[in-house]
Amino acid sequence: MPRRISDSTVRRLSHYLRALEGFEEEGGATVSSEELASRGHTTAAQVRKDLSHFGSFGKRGLGYRIVELLERLRAILGVDRVWRVVLVGAGRIGSALFEYPDFRSRGYNCVAILDSDPEKIGVRWGTTEIRPPEDLETVVTELEIDLVILAVPASVAQEVADRAVRAGIKGILNFAPVQIKVPSSVPVEDVNLVMELEALSFHITRGEAGV
Amino acid sequence: MPRRISDSTVRRLSHYLRALEGFEEEGGATVSSEELASRGHTTAAQVRKDLSHFGSFGKRGLGYRIVELLERLRAILGVDRVWRVVLVGAGRIGSALFEYPDFRSRGYNCVAILDSDPEKIGVRWGTTEIRPPEDLETVVTELEIDLVILAVPASVAQEVADRAVRAGIKGILNFAPVQIKVPSSVPVEDVNLVMELEALSFHITRGEAGV
Repeated sequence: MPRRISDSTVRRLSHYLRALEGFEEEGGATVSSEELASRGHTTAAQVRKDLSHFGSFGKRGLGYRIVELLERLRAILGVDRVWRVVLVGAGRIGSALFEYPDFRSRGYNCVAILDSDPEKIGVRWGTTEIRPPEDLETVVTELEIDLVILAVPASVAQEVADRAVRAGIKGILNFAPVQIKVPSSVPVEDVNLVMELEALSFHITRGEAGV
Repeated sequence: MPRRISDSTVRRLSHYLRALEGFEEEGGATVSSEELASRGHTTAAQVRKDLSHFGSFGKRGLGYRIVELLERLRAILGVDRVWRVVLVGAGRIGSALFEYPDFRSRGYNCVAILDSDPEKIGVRWGTTEIRPPEDLETVVTELEIDLVILAVPASVAQEVADRAVRAGIKGILNFAPVQIKVPSSVPVEDVNLVMELEALSFHITRGEAGV
């Protein structure tokens, strides 16, 4: 089994990737851990520690070669390839996600949409026709889907996840406000919007109470 | 300053709240740490540790009184009151968030919308009229706004955040794909959708490589 890398480390890697792209656009050739740290709102020691999980980068005193570190980070984050995505749930959140410009530019291609609403089935979003939920297994197999974006009500999320896992998908981005259980070999990232607001109101309440 | 509570603890508190609401609906009077743990996908020891940050709950051998723990958790998470929210950015994501049913039911009321698009200004979503971004300070003051949902492009996120902080908002839910800097007294929760997908592809790539 891979050594466990914390969620916060993975997030910082994403920030370093963005920062490096910025430095590359500005025409730089090398970058120091201090410069990377400052764009990533962290410390130089943390940058070195995060990158050390994945081998040896950079030369003492010379910093990192931007082109090389970019390439390595893209490989580490798996964004040096195309990921084929099925969106399950063509509601408001699903619609916003389908049109999200940064997904496609980062290699996450939504190639299929499923929804149970008879009024939506057969409708095209761009060139993609909305299909009924029964088609999940066919779609995953025939379109070689890697990832599922779950934008369905909580009540059906587990069932859809179970079927998607059996059909062979590799990972789930879950917007349904419920914790789904899947085998540990299938990573799940949860985006629970109410919980984000609750985290805010928790911190505000706690700060105001001063306890 | 309050003792630091980790983000993962706060998330588990949200899960315990959901679980308790479920137990209450089912008509229960008390619940054990084991039962709470099983709904929250964690351990009984973790439940006891998480709750111990906030004082003494429950009686050894008798478990927690559901009504009492619900009330305390709602107070801890700050969801025993109404939060007044301004949405900045009336694009696709903003539109999905504005209509998100769970926000209002949890006490997060979006009472104002701002957008810079002249075609959107003056349009009503429900009873709420979209106003120009210059109105931010007026809106925050006059409508006694607590929270800002930032659903704007990365290029303007920092400027909007700065103005909102100066106008007196208490917290920010940031959907702009950029890290914003605000005083430490103003909590920020980031929802970066591309980074969620990158975390998935990271874990899948790492699992496949087996390193």
